[in-house]
Amino acid sequence: MWHLYQFPLCPFSRKVRLALGEKGVSFEMLREHPWEARDEFFAFNPAGRTPVLHHGPKGITLIDSQAICEYFEETVDKSPLILGTAANRAEIRRLVALFDENFFADVTLPLLHERMKKRLVLRAPPDSKLLRQAMRLAHEHLDYIDWLVDNRRWLAGAQLSLADLTAAAQISVVDYLGGVDWSGHEGSHGWYRVIKSRPSFRPLLSEKMEGIAPPSQYADVNA
Amino acid sequence: MWHLYQFPLCPFSRKVRLALGEKGVSFEMLREHPWEARDEFFAFNPAGRTPVLHHGPKGITLIDSQAICEYFEETVDKSPLILGTAANRAEIRRLVALFDENFFADVTLPLLHERMKKRLVLRAPPDSKLLRQAMRLAHEHLDYIDWLVDNRRWLAGAQLSLADLTAAAQISVVDYLGGVDWSGHEGSHGWYRVIKSRPSFRPLLSEKMEGIAPPSQYADVNA
Repeated sequence: MWHLYQFPLCPFSRKVRLALGEKGVSFEMLREHPWEARDEFFAFNPAGRTPVLHHGPKGITLIDSQAICEYFEETVDKSPLILGTAANRAEIRRLVALFDENFFADVTLPLLHERMKKRLVLRAPPDSKLLRQAMRLAHEHLDYIDWLVDNRRWLAGAQLSLADLTAAAQISVVDYLGGVDWSGHEGSHGWYRVIKSRPSFRPLLSEKMEGIAPPSQYADVNA
Repeated sequence: MWHLYQFPLCPFSRKVRLALGEKGVSFEMLREHPWEARDEFFAFNPAGRTPVLHHGPKGITLIDSQAICEYFEETVDKSPLILGTAANRAEIRRLVALFDENFFADVTLPLLHERMKKRLVLRAPPDSKLLRQAMRLAHEHLDYIDWLVDNRRWLAGAQLSLADLTAAAQISVVDYLGGVDWSGHEGSHGWYRVIKSRPSFRPLLSEKMEGIAPPSQYADVNA
């Protein structure tokens, strides 16, 4: 059995959970808060980040969400998520990096810092200027998703791919933290509602981070 | 012919140049300074980052250093760089992410900001406190490389891989900017000297960023 070290609002763990869900790989979850910097966790992963996926009997430890997703792409045939020609796969990986790096840095990370870490760890009020800036950048990213879904069925092309799961994982964390305003983004909103209603998404939507309540529409697949 | 949009001290462009060099893929370079935020470049790459690799006749634009490396891994058999079993490949990709993300954020990015961007763009003096912190973190990363080369022939195992090229690309930029102190890191230093002497590395070492001179030992493959 695979064991996934994660916390509920980790967007990279969510990406892995969605990919494993689509591929039908079962796993158990263990809670890990990277900000507590446990020695045992750093011994496991010198990068000190979630997710980490460990299989004791096989003696395999997988680290980094993209390395984990590529591993299961190579070892599990069901539901290919990095699919098509080499150029198609490059386009999927470009979008994965865009959401894991740019969207994360622009939007998810400031939201996590201001509305999760400051509340649970630092016990400080959020900085409204930083929150406004993150939400302004969120609109720019949603504009780009609007453009993608206007031109393609899914973000990277004709089929669901890891690009969709990665974008939805980031957005779901921001949505939990009240940072998504869909007004003017009908295209993105429609795409997200479809992703949200997939069986792989359900376990994420029902889960809570202690001390932080999501907005009422967060888990509603019709909202 | 492939055209690579890059600037000499971009560690991600260096990673791609090393990988293409090892694989024997020829390309021409075009200079792009992402901080100038040219509209034409953003139209090409909404992430606004180098490297971008473009092939006009084929109509292919590849974006993101890892997506580019994975593309050539899939399309060029020569010199596999993400090699071995699925678990081996996951270990290579883990280390690639460690250097592209953690090493970059801890060491390369602050050096680039303090010693390149402040000199060429912002016309401001470097912050010595930030430089000291980056160089302290560089020692921690070199400690980890010491440990890896103490236990393995190359960073990810018995053979040269994309992990070595990625780490060397980051380190070479930091070395150009005077941020590498090898004292106490004989293992890392020996590994870097070997990488530095490879033919794929030569074009990088002879190239200069205008207005910034590297230290004398930078291009010396015996130093």
